[in-house]
Amino acid sequence: MSGAEDGATPAASTAPDDSAAPGAPRAAGRRRGRPAGSGAERGPATRERILETARALFAERGYEKTSVRAIARGAEVDQALVHHYFGTKEGLFSAAVAVTAGPVAERIAALGPLDPGRIGEEFTRAFLRVWEDPATRTPLLAVVRSALTHETAARIFREFIAGQLLSRLAGALPAEDAELRTELAAAQLVGTVLLRYVLRIPPLATTDPDTLVRQLAPVVQHHLTGAPLPTG
Amino acid sequence: MSGAEDGATPAASTAPDDSAAPGAPRAAGRRRGRPAGSGAERGPATRERILETARALFAERGYEKTSVRAIARGAEVDQALVHHYFGTKEGLFSAAVAVTAGPVAERIAALGPLDPGRIGEEFTRAFLRVWEDPATRTPLLAVVRSALTHETAARIFREFIAGQLLSRLAGALPAEDAELRTELAAAQLVGTVLLRYVLRIPPLATTDPDTLVRQLAPVVQHHLTGAPLPTG
Repeated sequence: MSGAEDGATPAASTAPDDSAAPGAPRAAGRRRGRPAGSGAERGPATRERILETARALFAERGYEKTSVRAIARGAEVDQALVHHYFGTKEGLFSAAVAVTAGPVAERIAALGPLDPGRIGEEFTRAFLRVWEDPATRTPLLAVVRSALTHETAARIFREFIAGQLLSRLAGALPAEDAELRTELAAAQLVGTVLLRYVLRIPPLATTDPDTLVRQLAPVVQHHLTGAPLPTG
Repeated sequence: MSGAEDGATPAASTAPDDSAAPGAPRAAGRRRGRPAGSGAERGPATRERILETARALFAERGYEKTSVRAIARGAEVDQALVHHYFGTKEGLFSAAVAVTAGPVAERIAALGPLDPGRIGEEFTRAFLRVWEDPATRTPLLAVVRSALTHETAARIFREFIAGQLLSRLAGALPAEDAELRTELAAAQLVGTVLLRYVLRIPPLATTDPDTLVRQLAPVVQHHLTGAPLPTG
Protein backbone atom coordinates (compact mmCIF):
# COMPACT_ATOMS: atom_id res chain seq x y z
CA MET A 1 0.00 0.00 0.00
CA SER A 2 2.51 2.58 1.12
CA GLY A 3 5.62 3.30 -0.85
CA ALA A 4 7.72 2.61 2.20
CA GLU A 5 6.80 -1.05 2.04
CA ASP A 6 8.18 -1.33 -1.45
CA GLY A 7 11.78 -0.79 -0.57
CA ALA A 8 14.35 -2.26 1.76
CA THR A 9 13.54 0.17 4.54
CA PRO A 10 11.83 -1.84 7.23
CA ALA A 11 12.36 0.85 9.85
CA ALA A 12 9.91 3.13 8.06
CA SER A 13 7.06 0.67 8.34
CA THR A 14 4.62 0.49 11.21
CA ALA A 15 2.04 -2.06 10.08
CA PRO A 16 0.35 -3.58 13.11
CA ASP A 17 0.17 -7.04 11.60
CA ASP A 18 3.91 -7.24 12.07
CA SER A 19 3.19 -9.17 15.23
CA ALA A 20 2.46 -12.15 13.02
CA ALA A 21 6.22 -12.74 12.97
CA PRO A 22 7.23 -15.63 15.22
CA GLY A 23 8.53 -13.94 18.32
CA ALA A 24 8.82 -10.22 18.58
CA PRO A 25 12.44 -9.90 19.75
CA ARG A 26 13.69 -12.32 17.12
CA ALA A 27 11.70 -10.57 14.45
CA ALA A 28 13.04 -7.20 15.48
CA GLY A 29 16.58 -8.54 15.34
CA ARG A 30 16.07 -10.02 11.91
CA ARG A 31 14.56 -6.89 10.61
CA ARG A 32 17.78 -5.05 11.34
CA GLY A 33 19.31 -7.19 8.65
CA ARG A 34 21.15 -9.60 10.88
CA PRO A 35 22.25 -12.49 8.66
CA ALA A 36 20.09 -14.99 10.48
CA GLY A 37 19.65 -17.05 7.37
CA SER A 38 23.28 -17.90 6.85
CA GLY A 39 23.04 -21.57 7.73
CA ALA A 40 20.30 -24.06 7.03
CA GLU A 41 17.92 -21.28 6.03
CA ARG A 42 19.66 -20.70 2.73
CA GLY A 43 19.49 -22.85 -0.32
CA PRO A 44 17.35 -23.63 -3.35
CA ALA A 45 14.43 -24.83 -1.20
CA THR A 46 14.33 -21.53 0.66
CA ARG A 47 14.52 -19.54 -2.56
CA GLU A 48 11.68 -21.66 -3.89
CA ARG A 49 9.59 -21.09 -0.78
CA ILE A 50 10.09 -17.33 -1.01
CA LEU A 51 9.07 -17.35 -4.66
CA GLU A 52 5.95 -19.43 -4.02
CA THR A 53 4.95 -17.14 -1.16
CA ALA A 54 5.48 -14.13 -3.40
CA ARG A 55 3.34 -15.64 -6.16
CA ALA A 56 0.54 -16.38 -3.71
CA LEU A 57 0.61 -12.88 -2.24
CA PHE A 58 0.87 -11.12 -5.59
CA ALA A 59 -2.09 -13.21 -6.75
CA GLU A 60 -4.13 -12.47 -3.66
CA ARG A 61 -3.39 -8.77 -3.18
CA GLY A 62 -1.94 -7.56 -6.45
CA TYR A 63 1.46 -6.02 -7.01
CA GLU A 64 0.89 -2.75 -5.23
CA LYS A 65 -0.40 -4.11 -1.95
CA THR A 66 2.22 -6.83 -1.60
CA SER A 67 5.32 -5.88 0.41
CA VAL A 68 8.69 -7.57 0.57
CA ARG A 69 8.23 -7.71 4.30
CA ALA A 70 4.94 -9.59 4.03
CA ILE A 71 6.58 -12.05 1.65
CA ALA A 72 9.47 -12.60 4.06
CA ARG A 73 7.03 -13.12 6.90
CA GLY A 74 4.92 -15.54 4.86
CA ALA A 75 7.99 -17.54 3.85
CA GLU A 76 9.31 -17.37 7.43
CA VAL A 77 12.67 -15.99 6.42
CA ASP A 78 14.60 -12.84 7.12
CA GLN A 79 13.72 -9.98 4.83
CA ALA A 80 17.42 -9.59 3.98
CA LEU A 81 17.36 -13.07 2.52
CA VAL A 82 14.55 -12.09 0.16
CA HIS A 83 16.63 -9.17 -1.05
CA HIS A 84 19.65 -11.45 -1.33
CA TYR A 85 17.87 -13.81 -3.70
CA PHE A 86 15.65 -11.44 -5.65
CA GLY A 87 16.88 -7.90 -5.15
CA THR A 88 13.83 -5.65 -4.98
CA LYS A 89 10.08 -6.25 -5.12
CA GLU A 90 10.39 -5.73 -8.88
CA GLY A 91 12.84 -8.59 -9.07
CA LEU A 92 10.46 -10.79 -7.13
CA PHE A 93 7.54 -9.92 -9.38
CA SER A 94 9.66 -10.54 -12.44
CA ALA A 95 10.58 -14.00 -11.15
CA ALA A 96 6.95 -14.67 -10.28
CA VAL A 97 5.85 -13.71 -13.80
CA ALA A 98 8.46 -16.01 -15.30
CA VAL A 99 7.26 -18.94 -13.20
CA THR A 100 3.60 -18.19 -13.82
CA ALA A 101 3.94 -17.74 -17.55
CA GLY A 102 6.26 -20.73 -17.70
CA PRO A 103 3.55 -23.14 -18.87
CA VAL A 104 2.74 -20.85 -21.80
CA ALA A 105 6.40 -20.60 -22.78
CA GLU A 106 6.78 -24.36 -22.43
CA ARG A 107 3.81 -25.04 -24.63
CA ILE A 108 5.18 -22.73 -27.28
CA ALA A 109 8.57 -24.40 -27.04
CA ALA A 110 6.91 -27.82 -27.16
CA LEU A 111 5.35 -26.97 -30.48
CA GLY A 112 8.74 -27.86 -31.89
CA PRO A 113 9.57 -26.92 -35.46
CA LEU A 114 6.57 -24.86 -36.41
CA ASP A 115 4.64 -26.03 -39.42
CA PRO A 116 3.74 -22.78 -41.19
CA GLY A 117 0.54 -24.37 -42.43
CA ARG A 118 -0.69 -25.27 -38.96
CA ILE A 119 0.90 -22.63 -36.74
CA GLY A 120 -2.41 -20.79 -36.26
CA GLU A 121 -4.27 -23.79 -34.94
CA GLU A 122 -1.37 -25.07 -32.86
CA PHE A 123 -0.77 -21.72 -31.21
CA THR A 124 -4.46 -21.10 -30.59
CA ARG A 125 -4.94 -24.55 -29.10
CA ALA A 126 -1.87 -24.28 -26.87
CA PHE A 127 -2.94 -20.84 -25.66
CA LEU A 128 -6.51 -21.83 -24.86
CA ARG A 129 -5.42 -25.01 -23.11
CA VAL A 130 -3.39 -22.97 -20.63
CA TRP A 131 -6.37 -20.71 -19.97
CA GLU A 132 -8.95 -23.50 -19.77
CA ASP A 133 -7.05 -25.18 -16.94
CA PRO A 134 -7.84 -23.46 -13.63
CA ALA A 135 -4.44 -24.49 -12.25
CA THR A 136 -2.67 -22.33 -14.82
CA ARG A 137 -5.45 -19.80 -15.39
CA THR A 138 -5.73 -18.52 -11.82
CA PRO A 139 -2.11 -17.39 -11.35
CA LEU A 140 -1.99 -16.03 -14.91
CA LEU A 141 -5.10 -13.97 -14.28
CA ALA A 142 -3.51 -12.55 -11.16
CA VAL A 143 -0.39 -11.50 -13.06
CA VAL A 144 -2.46 -9.97 -15.84
CA ARG A 145 -4.59 -8.04 -13.34
CA SER A 146 -1.48 -6.62 -11.68
CA ALA A 147 -0.02 -5.71 -15.05
CA LEU A 148 -3.21 -3.93 -16.08
CA THR A 149 -3.39 -1.81 -12.98
CA HIS A 150 0.18 -1.05 -11.96
CA GLU A 151 2.78 0.54 -14.22
CA THR A 152 5.80 -1.27 -12.78
CA ALA A 153 4.03 -4.61 -13.04
CA ALA A 154 3.00 -3.71 -16.59
CA ARG A 155 6.61 -3.01 -17.56
CA ILE A 156 7.87 -6.30 -16.12
CA PHE A 157 5.05 -8.20 -17.81
CA ARG A 158 5.73 -6.35 -21.08
CA GLU A 159 9.43 -7.22 -20.99
CA PHE A 160 8.62 -10.85 -20.40
CA ILE A 161 6.00 -11.01 -23.16
CA ALA A 162 8.16 -9.16 -25.65
CA GLY A 163 11.42 -10.87 -24.74
CA GLN A 164 10.27 -14.43 -24.20
CA LEU A 165 6.99 -15.19 -25.88
CA LEU A 166 6.55 -12.90 -28.85
CA SER A 167 10.14 -12.88 -30.02
CA ARG A 168 10.28 -16.66 -29.85
CA LEU A 169 7.16 -17.02 -31.94
CA ALA A 170 8.03 -14.18 -34.29
CA GLY A 171 11.46 -15.70 -34.79
CA ALA A 172 9.85 -18.76 -36.31
CA LEU A 173 7.99 -16.72 -38.91
CA PRO A 174 9.47 -15.62 -42.20
CA ALA A 175 7.62 -12.37 -42.74
CA GLU A 176 9.41 -9.08 -42.37
CA ASP A 177 6.76 -7.62 -40.06
CA ALA A 178 6.63 -10.83 -38.04
CA GLU A 179 6.54 -9.03 -34.70
CA LEU A 180 3.51 -6.92 -35.56
CA ARG A 181 1.77 -9.95 -37.03
CA THR A 182 2.47 -11.93 -33.89
CA GLU A 183 1.12 -9.17 -31.70
CA LEU A 184 -2.07 -8.85 -33.74
CA ALA A 185 -2.57 -12.59 -33.35
CA ALA A 186 -1.84 -12.29 -29.63
CA ALA A 187 -4.34 -9.42 -29.44
CA GLN A 188 -7.07 -11.71 -30.78
CA LEU A 189 -6.27 -14.34 -28.16
CA VAL A 190 -5.74 -11.93 -25.26
CA GLY A 191 -9.01 -10.17 -26.02
CA THR A 192 -10.78 -13.52 -26.13
CA VAL A 193 -9.32 -14.41 -22.74
CA LEU A 194 -10.53 -11.12 -21.25
CA LEU A 195 -14.08 -11.39 -22.54
CA ARG A 196 -14.30 -15.09 -21.73
CA TYR A 197 -12.53 -15.51 -18.39
CA VAL A 198 -12.43 -12.05 -16.82
CA LEU A 199 -15.56 -10.23 -17.95
CA ARG A 200 -17.32 -13.54 -18.72
CA ILE A 201 -19.60 -12.16 -21.39
CA PRO A 202 -21.89 -14.80 -22.90
CA PRO A 203 -22.01 -16.47 -25.37
CA LEU A 204 -18.22 -16.19 -25.69
CA ALA A 205 -17.86 -17.23 -22.06
CA THR A 206 -19.89 -20.40 -22.56
CA THR A 207 -18.76 -21.54 -26.01
CA ASP A 208 -16.91 -24.86 -25.96
CA PRO A 209 -13.14 -24.66 -26.56
CA ASP A 210 -13.21 -26.68 -29.79
CA THR A 211 -15.67 -24.26 -31.38
CA LEU A 212 -13.47 -21.40 -30.26
CA VAL A 213 -10.39 -22.98 -31.81
CA ARG A 214 -12.31 -23.46 -35.06
CA GLN A 215 -13.27 -19.78 -35.10
CA LEU A 216 -9.98 -18.34 -33.92
CA ALA A 217 -7.31 -20.53 -35.51
CA PRO A 218 -7.88 -19.25 -39.08
CA VAL A 219 -7.64 -15.65 -37.85
CA VAL A 220 -4.43 -16.36 -35.93
CA GLN A 221 -3.10 -18.17 -38.98
CA HIS A 222 -4.00 -15.18 -41.14
CA HIS A 223 -2.26 -12.75 -38.84
CA LEU A 224 0.86 -14.87 -38.55
CA THR A 225 1.30 -15.93 -42.15
CA GLY A 226 -1.02 -13.78 -44.23
CA ALA A 227 -3.05 -16.83 -45.18
CA PRO A 228 -6.57 -16.15 -46.48
CA LEU A 229 -9.52 -17.13 -44.37
CA PRO A 230 -12.17 -19.59 -45.45
CA THR A 231 -15.67 -18.33 -46.11
CA GLY A 232 -18.26 -19.05 -43.47
CA MET B 1 -2.73 14.13 -0.82
CA SER B 2 -5.92 12.36 -1.63
CA GLY B 3 -4.91 9.77 0.92
CA ALA B 4 -4.82 12.41 3.64
CA GLU B 5 -8.19 13.62 2.55
CA ASP B 6 -9.49 10.14 3.06
CA GLY B 7 -7.73 9.90 6.39
CA ALA B 8 -10.54 8.44 8.44
CA THR B 9 -11.03 5.56 6.05
CA PRO B 10 -8.08 3.22 5.49
CA ALA B 11 -8.19 2.13 1.88
CA ALA B 12 -7.61 -1.51 2.76
CA SER B 13 -10.53 -1.70 5.14
CA THR B 14 -13.94 -2.84 4.10
CA ALA B 15 -14.91 0.81 4.00
CA PRO B 16 -17.80 1.31 6.40
CA ASP B 17 -18.64 4.51 4.57
CA ASP B 18 -19.66 2.44 1.57
CA SER B 19 -22.67 1.11 3.39
CA ALA B 20 -25.53 2.79 1.64
CA ALA B 21 -27.41 3.78 4.73
CA PRO B 22 -28.16 7.45 4.33
CA GLY B 23 -29.35 8.07 7.85
CA ALA B 24 -30.03 11.77 7.70
CA PRO B 25 -28.73 12.84 11.11
CA ARG B 26 -25.61 10.70 10.75
CA ALA B 27 -24.92 12.01 7.27
CA ALA B 28 -25.46 15.56 8.39
CA GLY B 29 -23.10 14.97 11.27
CA ARG B 30 -20.43 13.66 8.93
CA ARG B 31 -20.76 16.71 6.80
CA ARG B 32 -19.81 18.68 9.86
CA GLY B 33 -22.97 20.68 10.08
CA ARG B 34 -23.55 21.41 6.43
CA PRO B 35 -27.22 21.68 5.56
CA ALA B 36 -28.78 18.54 4.12
CA GLY B 37 -29.35 18.55 0.38
CA SER B 38 -32.56 20.33 -0.36
CA GLY B 39 -33.80 23.39 -2.16
CA ALA B 40 -31.16 25.09 -4.28
CA GLU B 41 -28.76 22.16 -3.90
CA ARG B 42 -30.97 19.83 -5.94
CA GLY B 43 -31.42 19.79 -9.67
CA PRO B 44 -29.87 18.51 -12.89
CA ALA B 45 -26.71 20.57 -12.41
CA THR B 46 -26.14 19.00 -9.02
CA ARG B 47 -26.75 15.51 -10.34
CA GLU B 48 -24.29 16.25 -13.14
CA ARG B 49 -21.68 17.50 -10.68
CA ILE B 50 -22.02 14.37 -8.56
CA LEU B 51 -21.64 12.18 -11.62
CA GLU B 52 -18.57 14.05 -12.87
CA THR B 53 -16.98 13.83 -9.42
CA ALA B 54 -17.73 10.12 -9.31
CA ARG B 55 -16.17 9.58 -12.74
CA ALA B 56 -13.04 11.46 -11.71
CA LEU B 57 -12.67 9.52 -8.46
CA PHE B 58 -13.39 6.12 -10.02
CA ALA B 59 -10.80 6.96 -12.67
CA GLU B 60 -8.21 8.05 -10.13
CA ARG B 61 -8.66 5.40 -7.45
CA GLY B 62 -10.60 2.60 -9.05
CA TYR B 63 -13.96 1.22 -8.01
CA GLU B 64 -12.93 -0.38 -4.76
CA LYS B 65 -11.18 2.57 -3.19
CA THR B 66 -13.83 5.12 -4.10
CA SER B 67 -16.47 5.71 -1.45
CA VAL B 68 -19.84 7.39 -1.75
CA ARG B 69 -18.74 9.68 1.04
CA ALA B 70 -15.67 10.81 -0.87
CA ILE B 71 -17.83 11.49 -3.91
CA ALA B 72 -20.27 13.53 -1.84
CA ARG B 73 -17.40 15.47 -0.35
CA GLY B 74 -15.83 16.09 -3.75
CA ALA B 75 -19.13 17.29 -5.21
CA GLU B 76 -19.79 19.36 -2.09
CA VAL B 77 -23.19 17.85 -1.46
CA ASP B 78 -24.75 15.85 1.30
CA GLN B 79 -24.18 12.12 1.03
CA ALA B 80 -27.94 11.55 1.20
CA LEU B 81 -28.31 13.49 -2.04
CA VAL B 82 -25.91 11.13 -3.79
CA HIS B 83 -28.03 8.19 -2.67
CA HIS B 84 -31.16 10.05 -3.72
CA TYR B 85 -29.93 10.43 -7.29
CA PHE B 86 -27.97 7.21 -7.80
CA GLY B 87 -28.91 4.75 -5.08
CA THR B 88 -25.77 2.84 -4.15
CA LYS B 89 -22.14 3.02 -5.23
CA GLU B 90 -23.04 0.40 -7.86
CA GLY B 91 -25.64 2.75 -9.29
CA LEU B 92 -23.07 5.50 -9.47
CA PHE B 93 -20.54 3.31 -11.20
CA SER B 94 -23.17 2.11 -13.64
CA ALA B 95 -24.05 5.72 -14.51
CA ALA B 96 -20.36 6.55 -14.84
CA VAL B 97 -19.83 3.64 -17.23
CA ALA B 98 -22.78 4.76 -19.34
CA VAL B 99 -21.39 8.29 -19.61
CA THR B 100 -17.85 7.10 -20.27
CA ALA B 101 -18.79 4.55 -22.91
CA GLY B 102 -21.26 6.99 -24.43
CA PRO B 103 -18.90 8.09 -27.21
CA VAL B 104 -18.47 4.47 -28.29
CA ALA B 105 -22.21 3.87 -28.34
CA GLU B 106 -22.74 7.12 -30.22
CA ARG B 107 -20.20 6.21 -32.85
CA ILE B 108 -21.84 2.85 -33.35
CA ALA B 109 -25.24 4.52 -33.63
CA ALA B 110 -23.79 7.10 -36.01
CA LEU B 111 -22.73 4.35 -38.37
CA GLY B 112 -26.35 4.40 -39.47
CA PRO B 113 -27.66 1.57 -41.61
CA LEU B 114 -24.74 -0.81 -41.61
CA ASP B 115 -23.38 -1.75 -45.02
CA PRO B 116 -22.59 -5.45 -44.64
CA GLY B 117 -19.70 -5.06 -47.06
CA ARG B 118 -17.99 -2.35 -45.05
CA ILE B 119 -19.06 -3.08 -41.48
CA GLY B 120 -15.65 -4.44 -40.52
CA GLU B 121 -13.77 -1.33 -41.57
CA GLU B 122 -16.37 1.08 -40.21
CA PHE B 123 -16.53 -0.62 -36.83
CA THR B 124 -12.74 -0.93 -36.55
CA ARG B 125 -12.22 2.70 -37.50
CA ALA B 126 -14.88 3.97 -35.09
CA PHE B 127 -13.46 1.86 -32.27
CA LEU B 128 -9.86 2.94 -32.79
CA ARG B 129 -10.83 6.59 -33.11
CA VAL B 130 -12.34 6.53 -29.63
CA TRP B 131 -9.18 4.95 -28.24
CA GLU B 132 -6.75 7.18 -30.15
CA ASP B 133 -8.26 10.31 -28.61
CA PRO B 134 -6.86 10.85 -25.10
CA ALA B 135 -10.05 12.68 -24.10
CA THR B 136 -12.10 9.51 -24.56
CA ARG B 137 -9.30 7.00 -23.96
CA THR B 138 -8.38 8.07 -20.42
CA PRO B 139 -11.81 7.64 -18.80
CA LEU B 140 -12.42 4.44 -20.76
CA LEU B 141 -9.14 2.99 -19.56
CA ALA B 142 -10.13 3.77 -15.99
CA VAL B 143 -13.46 1.97 -16.35
CA VAL B 144 -11.79 -1.01 -17.98
CA ARG B 145 -9.18 -1.20 -15.20
CA SER B 146 -11.90 -1.18 -12.56
CA ALA B 147 -13.84 -3.84 -14.44
CA LEU B 148 -10.77 -6.05 -14.70
CA THR B 149 -9.98 -5.94 -11.02
CA HIS B 150 -13.30 -5.75 -9.20
CA GLU B 151 -16.14 -8.23 -9.62
CA THR B 152 -18.97 -5.73 -9.08
CA ALA B 153 -17.44 -3.31 -11.53
CA ALA B 154 -16.96 -6.20 -13.97
CA ARG B 155 -20.63 -7.14 -13.74
CA ILE B 156 -21.80 -3.57 -14.37
CA PHE B 157 -19.40 -3.22 -17.28
CA ARG B 158 -20.49 -6.61 -18.64
CA GLU B 159 -24.17 -5.66 -18.51
CA PHE B 160 -23.47 -2.43 -20.33
CA ILE B 161 -21.34 -4.08 -23.01
CA ALA B 162 -23.77 -6.93 -23.55
CA GLY B 163 -26.94 -4.85 -23.32
CA GLN B 164 -25.91 -1.74 -25.20
CA LEU B 165 -22.99 -2.30 -27.49
CA LEU B 166 -22.89 -5.91 -28.57
CA SER B 167 -26.61 -6.45 -28.90
CA ARG B 168 -26.93 -3.31 -30.99
CA LEU B 169 -24.19 -4.42 -33.35
CA ALA B 170 -25.25 -8.05 -33.40
CA GLY B 171 -28.82 -6.97 -34.16
CA ALA B 172 -27.62 -5.48 -37.42
CA LEU B 173 -26.10 -8.77 -38.55
CA PRO B 174 -28.03 -11.52 -40.28
CA ALA B 175 -26.12 -14.56 -39.06
CA GLU B 176 -27.66 -16.86 -36.52
CA ASP B 177 -24.59 -16.80 -34.27
CA ALA B 178 -24.31 -13.03 -34.60
CA GLU B 179 -23.59 -12.49 -30.91
CA LEU B 180 -20.65 -14.88 -30.81
CA ARG B 181 -19.32 -13.39 -34.04
CA THR B 182 -19.61 -9.90 -32.64
CA GLU B 183 -17.79 -10.89 -29.48
CA LEU B 184 -14.95 -12.52 -31.40
CA ALA B 185 -14.60 -9.31 -33.40
CA ALA B 186 -14.71 -7.31 -30.16
CA ALA B 187 -12.07 -9.63 -28.70
CA GLN B 188 -9.71 -8.73 -31.54
CA LEU B 189 -10.22 -5.03 -30.91
CA VAL B 190 -10.17 -5.21 -27.11
CA GLY B 191 -6.97 -7.24 -27.19
CA THR B 192 -5.40 -4.70 -29.53
CA VAL B 193 -6.36 -1.91 -27.15
CA LEU B 194 -4.78 -3.73 -24.23
CA LEU B 195 -1.48 -4.46 -25.95
CA ARG B 196 -1.33 -1.01 -27.55
CA TYR B 197 -2.57 1.39 -24.87
CA VAL B 198 -2.24 -0.47 -21.57
CA LEU B 199 0.76 -2.75 -21.88
CA ARG B 200 2.21 -0.64 -24.72
CA ILE B 201 4.11 -3.45 -26.39
CA PRO B 202 5.98 -2.33 -29.50
CA PRO B 203 5.63 -2.46 -32.45
CA LEU B 204 1.86 -2.68 -31.94
CA ALA B 205 2.01 0.32 -29.63
CA THR B 206 3.76 2.46 -32.23
CA THR B 207 2.06 1.40 -35.45
CA ASP B 208 0.06 4.20 -37.09
CA PRO B 209 -3.73 3.87 -36.86
CA ASP B 210 -4.28 3.56 -40.60
CA THR B 211 -1.97 0.55 -40.82
CA LEU B 212 -3.82 -0.96 -37.90
CA VAL B 213 -7.19 -0.46 -39.57
CA ARG B 214 -5.81 -2.09 -42.73
CA GLN B 215 -4.69 -5.14 -40.73
CA LEU B 216 -7.68 -5.41 -38.42
CA ALA B 217 -10.69 -4.46 -40.56
CA PRO B 218 -10.62 -7.63 -42.70
CA VAL B 219 -10.46 -9.78 -39.56
CA VAL B 220 -13.35 -7.92 -37.96
CA GLN B 221 -15.24 -8.20 -41.24
CA HIS B 222 -14.54 -11.93 -41.30
CA HIS B 223 -15.77 -12.44 -37.77
CA LEU B 224 -18.91 -10.40 -38.31
CA THR B 225 -19.95 -11.66 -41.73
CA GLY B 226 -17.88 -14.74 -42.45
CA ALA B 227 -16.18 -12.95 -45.33
CA PRO B 228 -12.89 -14.46 -46.49
CA LEU B 229 -9.68 -12.56 -45.88
CA PRO B 230 -7.38 -11.37 -48.62
CA THR B 231 -3.95 -12.92 -48.92
CA GLY B 232 -1.03 -10.86 -47.70
